[in-house]
Amino acid sequence: MALLIHHPVSPFCRKIRILMSEKKMLFVLKEEEPWKPSQDLYKLNPAGDLPVFLYDGNIISGNYPITEFLEEFSKETPLLPKDIKQRAEVRRLVEWFDTKFYKEVYRNIVYEKAHKRFGTGRAPDSRILKVGLNNLNFHMEYIDWLAERNNYLAGEEFSLADVTAAAHLSIVDYMGDVPWDGYKNAKLWYSKIKSRPSFKEILKDNIKGILPAKHYTNLDF
Amino acid sequence: MALLIHHPVSPFCRKIRILMSEKKMLFVLKEEEPWKPSQDLYKLNPAGDLPVFLYDGNIISGNYPITEFLEEFSKETPLLPKDIKQRAEVRRLVEWFDTKFYKEVYRNIVYEKAHKRFGTGRAPDSRILKVGLNNLNFHMEYIDWLAERNNYLAGEEFSLADVTAAAHLSIVDYMGDVPWDGYKNAKLWYSKIKSRPSFKEILKDNIKGILPAKHYTNLDF
Repeated sequence: MALLIHHPVSPFCRKIRILMSEKKMLFVLKEEEPWKPSQDLYKLNPAGDLPVFLYDGNIISGNYPITEFLEEFSKETPLLPKDIKQRAEVRRLVEWFDTKFYKEVYRNIVYEKAHKRFGTGRAPDSRILKVGLNNLNFHMEYIDWLAERNNYLAGEEFSLADVTAAAHLSIVDYMGDVPWDGYKNAKLWYSKIKSRPSFKEILKDNIKGILPAKHYTNLDF
Repeated sequence: MALLIHHPVSPFCRKIRILMSEKKMLFVLKEEEPWKPSQDLYKLNPAGDLPVFLYDGNIISGNYPITEFLEEFSKETPLLPKDIKQRAEVRRLVEWFDTKFYKEVYRNIVYEKAHKRFGTGRAPDSRILKVGLNNLNFHMEYIDWLAERNNYLAGEEFSLADVTAAAHLSIVDYMGDVPWDGYKNAKLWYSKIKSRPSFKEILKDNIKGILPAKHYTNLDF
């Protein structure tokens, strides 16, 4: 049995949870507030970041190491293709969401609405939110473009690119900020992800102090 | 023959250059300014970021995909250990430098001194520089602590953790901002890295408009 120290506001934790479910791993969750990391968290991970994965006496910290560990450790539902060039394309999209989407959208929207509010007591800055929403349109166009070409974001097969993109998008969707109407291919793609069993628990997420958007759990949104 | 589109100010490009050298790959470099990405760069990498790696008709963009591709493609000088738990420890440190060091040090020091100046014409903000220098002391303590315990940062063997840390540290050292005097284990570790053949070209780097610190190329600094 694995233990994941996580928070529902973190896209990286969401990613690892979906991964573990896809790989049929048994796990329990422990919540930790990312805006107030405890001394216990620092003892496990000197970076003080989430997620932290505990399994069989091992402590593995951080998005990238846990993701690659799960892929190497569990042969169930491989989420990286066999061909190394295709693997590179999947990882390009993983980096796109973990770095670019995170910086341009998450930091401006979710960070303002959650981390800032709960960590400092200050209200979100409407100018920063506006920048995030603007950037989100650009990312939605890109997802729509990818989803129009293939069944899944990196090709015909479901992969780590879809897991990563959906993890990031789902937390912004929880906040009610994803403009689905303009992007029918992106919407169709996301409805496929939403109906996967591995996504079920993500749709039950609840962040203390913030209600999910009304359509958040709907498969038909 | 591989082609890397890079810039000497980018720690991610430095990392890939060291990796390719460790793996005895033949490559040529093409410089692109990160603060003024060209239309040609966007055609190769829609994210508009460096590095971009071209090899045998393939285009691979970004730090994470290129790194893992090189490790999977070339069996020469493996830079990840065989044991998957040790691989996770190496990747934890890779993420530490690529994410935490990048955000806390690079963004505050190198970005201010280079990207801001060359991209916008504005002078660096001394308050931001001070935050970066302060954060750098914390990271130097951590490197010193790691280097005191083992030959290399993630254990007894040279690994991707050392390549990544040295890539990030070298660009801050170019700017003359690394406080070596207080950290003798970190200094000893870095002098070992500096004397590797794969690091030779890094020490010849020249950023137009910024002279390297006097000790930048010295093996005894």
